[in-house]
Amino acid sequence: MSKTGLLSLIWDGESLNMLDQRLLPSEIKYSKKTTVQEIWESIRTLEVRGAPAIGIAAAYGFYFAAREAPDTDFESFWKYLKEKSDYLASSRPTAVNLFWALERMEKKVLESKHLPISEIKRLVKEEAEAIHREDEEICRKIGEYGLTLLRDGVGILTHCNAGQLATARYGTATAPIYLAHEKGWKVRVFADETRPVNQGSRLTALELMQAGIDVTLICDNMAAMVMSKGWVDAVIVGCDRVAANGDTANKIGTLGLSILAKYYGIPFYVAAPTPTIDLETKTGKDIPIEQRNPEEVTCSFGRKTAPEGVKVYNPAFDVTPAENITAFITEKGIIYPPFEENIRNVINR
Amino acid sequence: MSKTGLLSLIWDGESLNMLDQRLLPSEIKYSKKTTVQEIWESIRTLEVRGAPAIGIAAAYGFYFAAREAPDTDFESFWKYLKEKSDYLASSRPTAVNLFWALERMEKKVLESKHLPISEIKRLVKEEAEAIHREDEEICRKIGEYGLTLLRDGVGILTHCNAGQLATARYGTATAPIYLAHEKGWKVRVFADETRPVNQGSRLTALELMQAGIDVTLICDNMAAMVMSKGWVDAVIVGCDRVAANGDTANKIGTLGLSILAKYYGIPFYVAAPTPTIDLETKTGKDIPIEQRNPEEVTCSFGRKTAPEGVKVYNPAFDVTPAENITAFITEKGIIYPPFEENIRNVINR
Repeated sequence: MSKTGLLSLIWDGESLNMLDQRLLPSEIKYSKKTTVQEIWESIRTLEVRGAPAIGIAAAYGFYFAAREAPDTDFESFWKYLKEKSDYLASSRPTAVNLFWALERMEKKVLESKHLPISEIKRLVKEEAEAIHREDEEICRKIGEYGLTLLRDGVGILTHCNAGQLATARYGTATAPIYLAHEKGWKVRVFADETRPVNQGSRLTALELMQAGIDVTLICDNMAAMVMSKGWVDAVIVGCDRVAANGDTANKIGTLGLSILAKYYGIPFYVAAPTPTIDLETKTGKDIPIEQRNPEEVTCSFGRKTAPEGVKVYNPAFDVTPAENITAFITEKGIIYPPFEENIRNVINR
Repeated sequence: MSKTGLLSLIWDGESLNMLDQRLLPSEIKYSKKTTVQEIWESIRTLEVRGAPAIGIAAAYGFYFAAREAPDTDFESFWKYLKEKSDYLASSRPTAVNLFWALERMEKKVLESKHLPISEIKRLVKEEAEAIHREDEEICRKIGEYGLTLLRDGVGILTHCNAGQLATARYGTATAPIYLAHEKGWKVRVFADETRPVNQGSRLTALELMQAGIDVTLICDNMAAMVMSKGWVDAVIVGCDRVAANGDTANKIGTLGLSILAKYYGIPFYVAAPTPTIDLETKTGKDIPIEQRNPEEVTCSFGRKTAPEGVKVYNPAFDVTPAENITAFITEKGIIYPPFEENIRNVINR
């Protein structure tokens, strides 16, 4: 394994080598993506997951569309590209990074419309590469700010995977952990397995173990007990979308953790790259919650664990109210309440 | 299926037909138990589970030991029997019903020591059958008292399986649900899947569906969201042991639910047959918590869902502090706070 650890996305200049995260932790398998259809499917089926990684993959998907778009005239080129961009946007309705990346790509095209199409295609490629590179920088900054909230010997509980595998590198919720570890601090991490798709056990436990970090896997319903023992000094989670008032959509189970943390007086931090903050979304009530396939719950790992035909409620996300969040850790600094005001200030900084 | 629904234990007068609950919901398979060794293994390996069912199984196990014990003289008979009783007690260190049933059986033997051994053996058999029969009566009474806390159209969340499959019949936490359903009330139940062994999805969802009750399966980490939607009017759980002050050991995850219920102002009821209440145990701190095999967490669904060699914390139970419990539903009535005093009063009633 290289010094970078296990990366989700490796760009070779013309194709995107993507780690199939559905096969982890048993198998490490990359496949080359070269078409917009392949990127759509990879996002839809969770082969790539994690808000930032989805944004990066979508940006390359946009470039693949541009590469194959008609280059007779700008109007045909743009018509084709806009249709593919909308198609990419339909792959995951709650991933705001997806829309953010696609909008940024579209903007790049529109502001270059006076240029030859071959030149626009080159700029589109550069823009996708920039999104990829900037994500790594964002994660590193989140890690540096997050580090100021921790100390040597800290115990951290995290949920789902907002780790390196979800981003270009370092992860968001895990970035402070990686940097603390690099610094030589002792860190003890509890990783919720995160039902139904077990991103915590398959991904977070895997990537932290590979980095030599002390990680203990627990079932989601053990978090309260671990907190009651005094083993958790901070909860750090990622997010899929933060509303203007600080309400935060993240993997199902985050809401419950925030309530437990409050009960035990444990700080609850949300690692949030600013593209994940959506000022257009006023509150959590405006965030659509995706319902996923019941089979994720009834038959998740190749064995049927529920009776045939049972009714299932399987929301992908929940919304944690702003009042349960101690602070957001962004690449532009830490945001404390009052969030409505402070989020806006930091975003516009 | 008979009118009784799916029963865990069927006694035919000389052997115990036991449903292998580890195979549910896919396969319904009974096997005949006729030896104390078979009963020990069935308790240890969770083939039979649920505090009351374990007590009943242990009582029959005690009878199997008595049946094969030397009948030369009382001293040899008792020595053999006491050794087997201690052996049965070692099968599950937190199941107070196990100790309760064995003590009751031992007492029956000791108070009959003046009788011929063949007669003692007959009395031992009758005592095991009485424990079995009385459990059904206890469950029905819990159902009747619990019913007074509910109303037509109620939404109930339950955890693990404190259902009919865990008892002689009706279950404990499920008894009010079954009786409400018999009464023609509409009841909507949310069943936590209950990781890592999924008793909620495999057992509770199964038995409620078979009874025609409206049940929705959720992952443990979805409980907060379901509560936030206003769909839950009461949480009802079972228990493995209640301390004198009301602190309650139950399946891992119960503690977290109690905190969520408190946050949302939802009453949190513990269905507790009085044999589960242990006045000798002063508080929750005195309840030993069994740690179970890490593979339950890492490899529970026939597929490895965590990296090789990952550290796992897998407590079987947690302890819910008395202050988070609205009331206990027992076969002798409902117990409200102050628990220290009221539990003692009801037990001694």
